[in-house]
Amino acid sequence: MPGLVETLKSITPIDPSYLDKAQARLDILTKPKDSLGRLEEFARRYVAITETTRPEIKRKIIFTFAGDHGVADEGVSAFPKEVTRQMVFNFLNGGAGINVLARHAGAEVVVVDIGVDYDFEDAKGLKKKKVVHGTRNIRKGPAMTREETIKCIEEGIMLAEEYGAKGTIFGTGEMGIANTTPSSAIIAAFSGGSVEEVTGRGTGIDDNIFKHKVRVIEDALRANSPDPSDPLDVVAKVGGAEIAGIAGLIIGAAARRIPVVVDGFISTAGALIACELKPVIRDYIFASHNSVERGHRVMFERMRLKPIVDLDLRLGEGTGAALAITLIEASVKIYNEMATFGDAGVSEQNA
Amino acid sequence: MPGLVETLKSITPIDPSYLDKAQARLDILTKPKDSLGRLEEFARRYVAITETTRPEIKRKIIFTFAGDHGVADEGVSAFPKEVTRQMVFNFLNGGAGINVLARHAGAEVVVVDIGVDYDFEDAKGLKKKKVVHGTRNIRKGPAMTREETIKCIEEGIMLAEEYGAKGTIFGTGEMGIANTTPSSAIIAAFSGGSVEEVTGRGTGIDDNIFKHKVRVIEDALRANSPDPSDPLDVVAKVGGAEIAGIAGLIIGAAARRIPVVVDGFISTAGALIACELKPVIRDYIFASHNSVERGHRVMFERMRLKPIVDLDLRLGEGTGAALAITLIEASVKIYNEMATFGDAGVSEQNA
Repeated sequence: MPGLVETLKSITPIDPSYLDKAQARLDILTKPKDSLGRLEEFARRYVAITETTRPEIKRKIIFTFAGDHGVADEGVSAFPKEVTRQMVFNFLNGGAGINVLARHAGAEVVVVDIGVDYDFEDAKGLKKKKVVHGTRNIRKGPAMTREETIKCIEEGIMLAEEYGAKGTIFGTGEMGIANTTPSSAIIAAFSGGSVEEVTGRGTGIDDNIFKHKVRVIEDALRANSPDPSDPLDVVAKVGGAEIAGIAGLIIGAAARRIPVVVDGFISTAGALIACELKPVIRDYIFASHNSVERGHRVMFERMRLKPIVDLDLRLGEGTGAALAITLIEASVKIYNEMATFGDAGVSEQNA
Repeated sequence: MPGLVETLKSITPIDPSYLDKAQARLDILTKPKDSLGRLEEFARRYVAITETTRPEIKRKIIFTFAGDHGVADEGVSAFPKEVTRQMVFNFLNGGAGINVLARHAGAEVVVVDIGVDYDFEDAKGLKKKKVVHGTRNIRKGPAMTREETIKCIEEGIMLAEEYGAKGTIFGTGEMGIANTTPSSAIIAAFSGGSVEEVTGRGTGIDDNIFKHKVRVIEDALRANSPDPSDPLDVVAKVGGAEIAGIAGLIIGAAARRIPVVVDGFISTAGALIACELKPVIRDYIFASHNSVERGHRVMFERMRLKPIVDLDLRLGEGTGAALAITLIEASVKIYNEMATFGDAGVSEQNA
């Protein structure tokens, strides 16, 4: 199994000649040129990522990484910490939002315990990859050691190795009470801007708790001084296990040319870590949705990604990724199944 | 079969108590309150439209209305007029964009010949409801007589009667070379604003043809003086057969409490006619997408509708409606299938 450094080294940009080949096919289909807008963009990118002009989606897998956060002790969330493990059981029983939307999309859900503060029995659909029993409280010191962080990332890379066969598309997702707090801390660390401008209301906190959350993040940045030129330092000090795991899955996906659909704010924090480590990884990412969290837009700008839908979602788990996968799959079907002008005997556009 | 006047009379606003009942259920599902954003809005509206707290989607049908336009003779489109009938054959053979996306959404396509300048043989999937062999050239006079217009609308109402069983969701779509021209004329007639601001490039015309198209629409409005207080006059004089048919389908859907997902710019022109006849019809409409056509936004503002996706589409046929139906169906599944806090043993949000 190649480690983080070798895996990063193996990632290359997509070959733009595949974008042209895909566009050439899209242009002979029975529709005005470019009239399917972003669906055509998705199809072109899918072809270029997978390096085949006969793209297929055989298997869709959403990885929901779960981890606890020491900073939950600061009262930054509307939910108690035990909800992380309770929701893992809900995922395994098929009753959560991600289960419903994954079934709708024809996708599997793989739940990854990367850092929950609870020891799970073996269960169908659960990957036991625990690196920490919850992170430490970032207000007081680093969330994880550098070694733990690299371990989380490499677990993500290993999942991409294990599941990343040809014809597979990945989605990311997460569960971790308080995890918008480290996500905001991560984008604030990179952007260097105001914490308030990249902090939102997570699961739904009031004005007072919001002000408190901003203070906690400011304290965390002061206590840890994460180095923005060293993305591993940022995710170790003010991130979380699931965020590092998601970064690893995305890195592994890029290395294997597997398209990866990134869910909401927390997943995008993971994508940001991956892209700060190697910017070309953005070529392999589909940004699923624009969440209600304010820092999300700042992340997209930094990565030059444009989300697929904007439905005021803020649930996480992979729910936005599941919805976006249905639209990406639609684009691949357009590419594969539409008749050409020649086949259908339809007159072409005037030059 | 009730005619237009009686059908309009039978339409009542949705009962807001159903919105509350739906929200009450959404609020006990295992997610932070409101965290599924617009999906929750879609589910609430679906419950209220269908007046059942156990909503089901048993059947999805996209009606693609086809009609020709005399104004095509003015050279306002990038495609020759015969493409309307060629595309009808493409629809019937399953090779068009709408066929691919309807299959993806699990929807049927019903092709409705309401005004094509060609006599089709009987064919599976084709409803022969021809009212005109193409409209007359609106630059020179009215597209249709008032009687022809009412006939088109009543054919749409009849389709809603025929297909509108409980558990059905409708989508609209259209095919008609040059039909962005009457659609822009319709919104210009209602808004009274500048034609240029509500005119786009349709299937893809260059600057010179665009300027010409604006002139043609200005001439059409001058030649016909459609009365904006009389929506039937507007659609008769500067509209089209498929636009009137779509208006009728939407009116019939509202009368039967069938949710109807409206496709792009031309379909929305049909929705606008319906809503100008009876504003409460908007309660029954889902606006699928925000197209590239500039006049589309002006229509949405007038109807106070917010589109579901924004993917730079401009194909029509019902393609945007098909994509939106997958998202609306996702919302109904969330409503029906997610576990409650009680069922799943998950701790609830702090008050």
